[in-house]
Amino acid sequence: MDIRLVKGSDYNAISPLINEWWGGRQMSDMLPKLFFVHFNETSYTAEINGEIVGFLIGFLSQSHSDEAYIHFVGVHPDYRKNNIGKKLYNEFFNVVKENGRNIVRCVTSPVNKVSIAYHIKMGFEIEEGNKEVDGVSVFANYDGPNQDRVLFAKKLD
Amino acid sequence: MDIRLVKGSDYNAISPLINEWWGGRQMSDMLPKLFFVHFNETSYTAEINGEIVGFLIGFLSQSHSDEAYIHFVGVHPDYRKNNIGKKLYNEFFNVVKENGRNIVRCVTSPVNKVSIAYHIKMGFEIEEGNKEVDGVSVFANYDGPNQDRVLFAKKLD
Repeated sequence: MDIRLVKGSDYNAISPLINEWWGGRQMSDMLPKLFFVHFNETSYTAEINGEIVGFLIGFLSQSHSDEAYIHFVGVHPDYRKNNIGKKLYNEFFNVVKENGRNIVRCVTSPVNKVSIAYHIKMGFEIEEGNKEVDGVSVFANYDGPNQDRVLFAKKLD
Repeated sequence: MDIRLVKGSDYNAISPLINEWWGGRQMSDMLPKLFFVHFNETSYTAEINGEIVGFLIGFLSQSHSDEAYIHFVGVHPDYRKNNIGKKLYNEFFNVVKENGRNIVRCVTSPVNKVSIAYHIKMGFEIEEGNKEVDGVSVFANYDGPNQDRVLFAKKLD
């Protein structure tokens, strides 16, 4: 598997994969091309035999000088359980540390139990919100009305 | 009119305005909350009597150290022709210059003639693309299949 930085031209390959990998949910609007143009030294693709099987889109926070944020991570459904996600996250953690930052944040939905379990396994902690959903602390209406979110933070060593 | 930096809590006010101001088009997914959290010192709202009548969401490019990018600008339909957009752009141009950068980029659809005319009036130049639509140079399939885009750049003095 090859992990490399994304290029602007990857957008046209990755954008349609999003709706496909998320089981047809209309998700691709959440990842506009600008991330491939203006944040491409902190964003990665994983390829096997030239086929994109995973990607991670992240950036260094402009507002918080010790933080970085992971916006979107996707792994091809046929290639899960292959540590592709883990390798992408570790690549990102390394570039964050190289940039002198030590906090990585990301956000997920309370319904996404797989994502919650995955982030905990990857060493993220759940931030104390203002509501509980199925025993998990969430921020109510974080992403708009009825859009509660679980906020994660990981401190890098 | 008061222009101020956006806060995280503005997200819940601005997000529903997007679909409203864009005539019901489902646009709000293109502006996720992260812009209000991680790029809030280069993003602005305009208020009249405490009501949000405009906003500009922009950032300093992480990949291109002399560039900044405007992601989203909206003005309340009832308050157009009041130079609200112009004031928001100028505020952004100032913060870009304060950060030692001198190129501002943004992107629009070829169908959006009003936006094209507006950007030209604001001193943006159209970048030479690979196709022409109604006499305007565009980048074919820039934002995905059949999603041609006009790319603008403005050099700040």
